[in-house]
This record gives sequence, C-alpha cells and structure tokens, in this order.
Amino acid sequence: MDHAEWVKRDLRALAESLGFRYTPLNEIEDRLARVRIAMKVNEIEALWVVEKMDYYYLSGTTQDGFLFVPLEGKPLLIVKRELERARAESPLEEVVGFRSLRELPTLIQSHWGRLPKTIGVELDLLPVRDYLKFQELFPGMRFKDSSPLLRDIRKNKSPFELGLMKLSGEIGRKVYQEAGAILKEGMTEIEFGGLLEAVAKKYGHEGLLRVRSLNYEAYTWHVLSGLSGGLVSQSDSPMGGLGLSPAFPVGASLKVMRAHEPILVDFGICYHGYQTDRTRMFSVGRMDQKFIDAYDACKEIYNAVLEEIRPGTDCEEIFLMTLRLAEKLGYKDSYLGPPGLQTRFIGHGIGLELNEFPFLAQGQSYPLESGMTLAVEPKIVFPGEGAVGIEDTVVVTRDGFEMLTPFEQEIFEV
Amino acid sequence: MDHAEWVKRDLRALAESLGFRYTPLNEIEDRLARVRIAMKVNEIEALWVVEKMDYYYLSGTTQDGFLFVPLEGKPLLIVKRELERARAESPLEEVVGFRSLRELPTLIQSHWGRLPKTIGVELDLLPVRDYLKFQELFPGMRFKDSSPLLRDIRKNKSPFELGLMKLSGEIGRKVYQEAGAILKEGMTEIEFGGLLEAVAKKYGHEGLLRVRSLNYEAYTWHVLSGLSGGLVSQSDSPMGGLGLSPAFPVGASLKVMRAHEPILVDFGICYHGYQTDRTRMFSVGRMDQKFIDAYDACKEIYNAVLEEIRPGTDCEEIFLMTLRLAEKLGYKDSYLGPPGLQTRFIGHGIGLELNEFPFLAQGQSYPLESGMTLAVEPKIVFPGEGAVGIEDTVVVTRDGFEMLTPFEQEIFEV
Repeated sequence: MDHAEWVKRDLRALAESLGFRYTPLNEIEDRLARVRIAMKVNEIEALWVVEKMDYYYLSGTTQDGFLFVPLEGKPLLIVKRELERARAESPLEEVVGFRSLRELPTLIQSHWGRLPKTIGVELDLLPVRDYLKFQELFPGMRFKDSSPLLRDIRKNKSPFELGLMKLSGEIGRKVYQEAGAILKEGMTEIEFGGLLEAVAKKYGHEGLLRVRSLNYEAYTWHVLSGLSGGLVSQSDSPMGGLGLSPAFPVGASLKVMRAHEPILVDFGICYHGYQTDRTRMFSVGRMDQKFIDAYDACKEIYNAVLEEIRPGTDCEEIFLMTLRLAEKLGYKDSYLGPPGLQTRFIGHGIGLELNEFPFLAQGQSYPLESGMTLAVEPKIVFPGEGAVGIEDTVVVTRDGFEMLTPFEQEIFEV
Repeated sequence: MDHAEWVKRDLRALAESLGFRYTPLNEIEDRLARVRIAMKVNEIEALWVVEKMDYYYLSGTTQDGFLFVPLEGKPLLIVKRELERARAESPLEEVVGFRSLRELPTLIQSHWGRLPKTIGVELDLLPVRDYLKFQELFPGMRFKDSSPLLRDIRKNKSPFELGLMKLSGEIGRKVYQEAGAILKEGMTEIEFGGLLEAVAKKYGHEGLLRVRSLNYEAYTWHVLSGLSGGLVSQSDSPMGGLGLSPAFPVGASLKVMRAHEPILVDFGICYHGYQTDRTRMFSVGRMDQKFIDAYDACKEIYNAVLEEIRPGTDCEEIFLMTLRLAEKLGYKDSYLGPPGLQTRFIGHGIGLELNEFPFLAQGQSYPLESGMTLAVEPKIVFPGEGAVGIEDTVVVTRDGFEMLTPFEQEIFEV
C-alpha cells in the first residue's frame, strides 16, 4: 500500500481511536492572533519558528520542519519529514514539503509574494551554524530574537491546554496511587522509579520532559532516598540526587532504599506535550521525626504560597515571603538547598516546557495573571541525610487558583 | 553537615560502590593529546567546549559548566553547578567555579596568562544568543566551528569506552532475555515498552538517548506492532511508529498488540553515556509468512554488511551493496522504508550520541577504521501492514569486527 494514501485515509481515525487529541483550527487561530499582536509591537514582519515546542504550539504538529508566520496572510508549514503526516495533524491550510534548505527562499517567495526584511527566530536555541546558513540563504534579512515574544504568549494557557494539563495531572495521580503497592524495602531507587514510569506510560505519559535549554536534560525518575536527597547536582534544583553515572548524575541511583529513610518522589508527567509536576514523600516504616517536622514546614510554606496565588500578586514577593517564613520555621539554612547552593525560586511556570514563565523567584517582579500555570515546590535539604518536599501544579484563575494535580498530602508509609 | 565536605569525603566512595566508573586521568590525557593534534592542524589556539557530551568526553564530568582547552598548558574546567561534585568527578587538576558569564574572561586570563585570538566552539549546537554574548565578552576573538574536529576524534573508541559499551550491550541482553516473559497478547505497545524500560533501568540504563541535534529527541521505547511499524514519522528512520500524541509522534503507542502481528523492538541502552542499539522481532503466535521472509532478507543483508566490516572498507560502498542485495531479494520498494520515504543509510556510528561518525550511507565515502563503533540496521517496511528488521552494534577491529550486542537472532514467538 502507498504510505501517503494510508496516512490520508487512516492515520487520523486510528490515532484518535488511540487517544490522540489534535489541536483544533480555532485554537491555532487564537494563538496566531495573539502572536501577531506581539509581532506588530516588536516590529517583526514574519516569524520563522524552529524550536519544537513553539512549532507544535503554532502548527499542531511536531513533524520535522519550519513554520513561517507572516504578520498578514496565511502561515506556511514547510516540512522535511513526514509531509503527509504533518498535513493530517496540522489544521493549517498551507503545508508544503522540502528536501534541501536551498529551496526555502523560493518556497516563501512563492507563498508570500516577497521575502520579509525583518524576521523573528528563536535565537536562544537556534544553533549558530543554522543561523549562518539562513543569513546566506536570505542575504540582507534582519534576524530578531522571537523567543521572548513566544514565551510570553505561551505563558497564559487556553481552556484547551488546561484540559490537556488536567489529563496529565490525572496520569500522575494514578502513578502515586499505585506507588505505595510498588515500593518495597531493599528495592533500589532506580528500580522503583522505573516501575513508576512504566505505570505512567501505560496511561499515556510520554517519557521525556522538556526544558528550554541547550544542555538541560529532564527526566521523570527523581526518586531520592536518604542521603541521595541531600546531594546537589548540575540541575538548578534544591537537590539533584546521585544518578546512575557521571554522565547522568541526577535522579534515581542504584542505592538501595532502606527503612525509615525519607524517600522523595518528584515525578513529572508529559501528556500531549503538556507537563505537570508533583512531589510526595514515601517511607518504609516511619521516617525520623526531623524529616516529618521539615515536611510539615514544607506544607506550611506550600499553603502560604497557594494563599497568594491570584491575579495581581507579585511573583518575587511570593518568593521573598517564603524565605521569611522558612527562617521563622527554623529552616533558613536548609530551605531550597544547603547553604551556598540554595536555589532562588519556589515555583516555575510549566506547560510544554518545564521552565516557562512566570517564575516565583528572586528578581522576577511582575504580577501573576489568570491562565498562568505554576509548579509550586518548597523543599528542605540536609546534606548527608536526606530531603523532603511537596509539589503541585496549579493554574491561576480569576480569583485564586485551581489545582491541576490533586492528591492527598500525607507521607505514604508502607 | 556541610555539602562540600560531604562531597569531598564521601561522594566518590559511595558512587563507586554503586557502580560509577569515573574516567581515569590517562584516558582524558590521551583524548586531549589527540584533540590537540587536530587543533594544531585546524589552527585553533584553544577550545571552548560547551556541548554536554563533548564536555563529558574531555573532562569526565557533566556538572554544568564549560571546558577551556588551550593548545599548550593545562585545561581549565569552569563550573557553575555543582563545583565540588565536578572536582570529585573530573581527573582534571584545575577546576574553578563561576556565577556570572562576566567572570569568564578574567578566569581564562588568570589561568592562561592571556586570551586566545582564535577559539574553537561547537557551532552546530551553540545557540546564537550565547554566541553573541561570547562575542561581547571576548571582543576581537575569532570563533571557529570545533564540532567537526571533536566528532572526528570521538569516532574511534578507546578500550575504556569499549568496556562501557560492552556493559551497555549486556544490559540490553538482559532486557531481551526477559522480554519474552513480559509480552502478552492484548498488551499495548507502550505498556510493553515501559516494562522493558523498567527492566533496563533496574540494571543501570540511563533512560535518555542522545542525538546531536536541536530538535531530535531520542527515546528507548520503539515497540511497533503491525501497522504501527508501517508508519514513517519525523525521525530519519525507516519507520517511526504512531507514538502517543502529535507532540510525540514516534515510538510505541496505545495500540493493542494482536496475535500474528510482527512486533519490532528497537531498544537503545545508555550506560555511563555510552549507547548500544539492538533490534529483534517478537510475535504472539506465528507471524505471517510475508514478514518471516522479509526478516530472513534483513538477516541476509545484515550478514552481508558484517562480512564487509573491517578497516579500509568504504562506508558508502557498503550501503550501495545492500541496495543491490535488497533489490535482488525482491525488496527494492520496501527496503529502509516505503517508496519516496526510504532512508539513505544502513548503519551509523554510535557512542555518546546516536548520530556519530561513520555513516554507512549514501555520500559517505571514506574508509572504516579500527575502533569505530557501528549500529547496523537493515529494515523492511510495508505501509499499513508492519515492519521487520534486525540491528546490532559492533566495533571495527584490526581484521574484522567484534559484536557489542550479542544475542540470538530468531523471532521470539510467545
């Protein structure tokens, strides 16, 4: 059978019967309308979208290619592989194929009538080599960084996006529900983490988590027991864990989990690209009172943050408030990491990437807005001993917030 | 306890007791010596290493930072997070911390006495925004693309690296050994894939696979049953599968695996950063004769390739030979993908990344060398029906090859 024919006739029905939710045209149109207002303000004539999640956000597909978005006129989706699949997945009207980058100027010229003088491209991620190639293909064109504009648009989630995030949160809920029955004394962290991931995948978790960065690799097996939790690593996180090797020095390790140790499970879920994050504590037998007290402090800080989540609250203020509260509770030197290594955020925007705006962080003085989604994650770290924490993902609503990752908060003692 | 003290005193012993293998100093020195010869030839005064795997290769750590390698004199490892851990992990002598990029010129100046006039950096991956920042920090400095040089050095593996790749292959062997007992009719592809991953992780598989590219995401759950195998996607692979959503349209899906379907399991393992790749076929009950015949053809092509693996054979020639053989066997229109979508390689270098040199591919005319590692993967694809294939990872030896992923090759029928 011909591949193109099969894709045209059968792909979409098969995929939808297996749970695929395609981005509808009106959703894409709303996003494009918001992007175009920002383009006008920033004096950008057209966007050249290269980063996978920006491209997915504006086209509905992640088939390999580029998206050209002029300020006026139809967008053009230019696909390397696989063209028919991109046509089936994206509600955009104009989808063409290409084999060599040399075809790009002609494709744009014939679609739009001319080439733009100023084009926006994501310079925070576009590799230099590709940039130089584009400059050669489009001589005289001015390239502007479109990343701030796109990240700004993406920070306010639509009802369609929030629906996907709730389903992401629901997968996580099932994982935590089954976790107690999986955890056994004598299991290694990575064995426990791997089994939790297998549960998550069974329900549709996509495995990889995405961080907008050159070298930051995200993963979903952050299971840290006892002293593993007391260990900082490469990631901008209160604790990083030991990991499996110097090439992956983060997350779960081959350390055996022992009775009475605090076991921190920070488990992100990705569903249709949309991530939610949740942390809960586990132990085999009762954990030391020191950790129980610290976990209670995390919950107090977490509740104090949630009380402030509503449109208008200043993001930096929330962070600074938690510093004062942690100090008052006696955790000045262990809140968000060990002295000298403490992270400077208590929450981060989350959606298609794990480092979206807004940040509840030092230096991030701007107000919360309705539709922003946030992972709130107070953690307390004792080097050589362990870490505790709690985390949930919420959306800012008109008068407060809605929980996207509902689940009980007590320590799971097995 | 103080984090730095704990790391200095306990990290390395703990990590080694849990299976960490740190890169020894003589290994790093050998690599640096080879890199410096290439720097001299390319007239590069110093390297500024930014890409995670290049950085790991030359420093032994992946703690977040940069590596400065002058043509003469000691390298300087400049670490953002976490400094003490980088010091414990890397055998390099000079390891310093930094907080802001503005400190970099002073750090290099005080280490090396001056700033280089020409510096090599990986322009195939370095984002434009970082590049512009470096140009501002180091005015007048000339930046050259060091990526070709580093990829060239990395293509010949040392005995230390081959030792890690053998252990990687050994983890995969255990996964395939347990796979038959896990596979059940009525299971979804992703459930099977998730459980295979859980097995792999228990033995130390690191989960993420790495591809040197902006947008190419690699994963380790390529389980394709029946018509899923007949579906091409964004990846440069004979078949991509359906995946879980338009955001992850590759690999295993929520499709139920049925009796008599060909089930292709292409499962990469990552151990200490070193990857091996292996594909085998499974079925519940006997698969259709059409697929059995096509699998026999794949094995014939695979054996014909292995017969040519020795120093001196031309890489493109091997690829072209397989095209002729596939045509002779009657698979011209299904070999390496459906018509119009056929990939143009039969094997690829593999190590810290999945797309290393050499490539057994069209246009890649250069000789195989001793120490090169290759994944050899003939596949046959029938759109709407399914795919079959076999894959193993080998190292080129002085007079032939050694198998890094030994395992039986019959179809696993449960």
